[in-house]
Amino acid sequence: MCIQESCGKMFPVIKCKAAVAWERGKPLCIEDVDVAPPKVHEVRIKIIATGVCHTDWEYLYETEKGMKFRPFPLVLGHEAAGVVESVGPEVTKFSPGDKVIPLFLPQCGECKRCQCPKTNHCRKNWENTQMGVLADGTSRISCKRQQVFQFLGVSSFSEYTVVPDTSLAKIRSDAPLDKVCLLGCGVSTGYGAAVNTAKVEKDSLCAVFGLGAVGLAAVMGCQVAGAKRIIGVDINPDKFEKAKAFGATECVNPRDHSKSIQEVLVAMTDGGVDYALECVGSPDVMSAALESTADAWGTCVIAGWTETEEMKVKVLKILMGRTLKGTYFGGEPKMSLPLDQINVAFGLLKSGKSIRTVINL
Amino acid sequence: MCIQESCGKMFPVIKCKAAVAWERGKPLCIEDVDVAPPKVHEVRIKIIATGVCHTDWEYLYETEKGMKFRPFPLVLGHEAAGVVESVGPEVTKFSPGDKVIPLFLPQCGECKRCQCPKTNHCRKNWENTQMGVLADGTSRISCKRQQVFQFLGVSSFSEYTVVPDTSLAKIRSDAPLDKVCLLGCGVSTGYGAAVNTAKVEKDSLCAVFGLGAVGLAAVMGCQVAGAKRIIGVDINPDKFEKAKAFGATECVNPRDHSKSIQEVLVAMTDGGVDYALECVGSPDVMSAALESTADAWGTCVIAGWTETEEMKVKVLKILMGRTLKGTYFGGEPKMSLPLDQINVAFGLLKSGKSIRTVINL
Repeated sequence: MCIQESCGKMFPVIKCKAAVAWERGKPLCIEDVDVAPPKVHEVRIKIIATGVCHTDWEYLYETEKGMKFRPFPLVLGHEAAGVVESVGPEVTKFSPGDKVIPLFLPQCGECKRCQCPKTNHCRKNWENTQMGVLADGTSRISCKRQQVFQFLGVSSFSEYTVVPDTSLAKIRSDAPLDKVCLLGCGVSTGYGAAVNTAKVEKDSLCAVFGLGAVGLAAVMGCQVAGAKRIIGVDINPDKFEKAKAFGATECVNPRDHSKSIQEVLVAMTDGGVDYALECVGSPDVMSAALESTADAWGTCVIAGWTETEEMKVKVLKILMGRTLKGTYFGGEPKMSLPLDQINVAFGLLKSGKSIRTVINL
Repeated sequence: MCIQESCGKMFPVIKCKAAVAWERGKPLCIEDVDVAPPKVHEVRIKIIATGVCHTDWEYLYETEKGMKFRPFPLVLGHEAAGVVESVGPEVTKFSPGDKVIPLFLPQCGECKRCQCPKTNHCRKNWENTQMGVLADGTSRISCKRQQVFQFLGVSSFSEYTVVPDTSLAKIRSDAPLDKVCLLGCGVSTGYGAAVNTAKVEKDSLCAVFGLGAVGLAAVMGCQVAGAKRIIGVDINPDKFEKAKAFGATECVNPRDHSKSIQEVLVAMTDGGVDYALECVGSPDVMSAALESTADAWGTCVIAGWTETEEMKVKVLKILMGRTLKGTYFGGEPKMSLPLDQINVAFGLLKSGKSIRTVINL
């Protein structure tokens, strides 16, 4: 079905460039796509800048891990900032020209979960957006007369996209979009892991595993919370200077030690840290993070993403008073590349050479 | 060294009966033992009643699991109530005749941990009592002129024992010792898991896995906290009537279902319980308990004991907002047996036929 037939009522279809993932495991292709106008309770956005997150990579290149089925072709990208181009019927909170950040985790404000102070896990349109479509079961992006699915309902690797009005946050008109786009995932995840989920306390001892965008935001969160020591952990020492600029009081490279990183941290802190923040997404690092916390009260928060993997937990560590929690939705400094360099960005991400690459559209 | 030589200053050595574990994997032997008088900051107790806990069993019969080394011969037992027989020098809080419960986890009231509202993990004498001795590095129990170690510093499978004054709680003079002995481990663990660790809320949905002493106490804790539904889970339906008497609103036998117990519970509760309390000590049950909780806010508390095992945690379950915690130190109804029937009590425990067996000394 051509999208133009069903919903070309109020605004024209926009023809623009997008990075299309035609099939899993293959590089993205820069294509001319059609972006249909917004339907009821939807907003069409001109994407100005988008982060390139490990989760985008994972869904393209690591699908053999048995993740939830998501159909192709697909436009990836879920950490972005842009400007409202047009709004569909019944949209009251957004107007053309508003600066916005699309949200892969919505906030409808009305459901049981939005009204519960314990969680940010709104389920508005959840099942649909997980399958790459909007509320009516279809996507607003098409290419070569074929429907292109929208990753997490966002698809920010496109010059234009359409999202539900409950999956959008309005931001200040003077916000620098190439920077605040990182609030769309990485920064919120890391900062929130420290401040909201771990609830890091003043004068506490903290360790942050992984010093990419999420980890640096976690370091920042620990500093804002008043932590006494913030130990950055990464196997790439090139990231240490940046981590210290963000608030890390010291940094450790696990490869510099013959003992396990958890043993090193327990010795450095005379018993373990109060809070450990895992910002890598590796089950082994998660186990190490948990074991680096102090018994009696240590808290380990998982911020790194994996959809399919299991971590091993030594039950005694839990019985001795540790807590294991997770956080969903939160990143930082970055290098800028144009959209046609998006596969280069994936290369930088996978090699661990960049902290966060942002694409300017 | 004969204990009488070093410390028979104020009170005589007491000759009494105890169940001695001469070596791992062998039944306990009822022996005549010598119980030395209390040294500085120690209290000698006449044990009136003792529970028989799975952890006692585990340290005798499952040592192949690679647990922390503990020396033999050993007097097991750590869930008891008794009467103070005599006190050593500098003991100010206890007098002969006081009714007391010995504590395998002390409360010195002075250390950093005792002063922290987040934990009950006092470390006073911890390393010593874990190795079966008191503060001076020796035990107060001997048999056939050989030192007999004190399990967790308690050794309640003896008519008399000596414990540090920081490992003892005074109770009301009218307390029925054959019942309150269960406060020495099982009841406190289960009740505390619900009330202190999970912090079960009014009108919440709860599931309790394992309906032995710890589980029944957890059910009781959930009821006191005002839970709306308390689902008891056990593979022995003979325990269901008792569980309902304690407050379970319904009971489920996993063997009655072809689906996994976590799938059954998620379906029964339209998304999962708010609180799951694992009172078995099995890693598979722990994983099931975690997965039976609701995403966004579900909390799983491990109360069942295992010193050596690992549980598998699906990371996505944690990332979607669940919390995993542990509790240490907390039991209930029971059958009574005399000390010479202690191996029968172990049999009842291992077969799952009794909820808690108490030995009257």
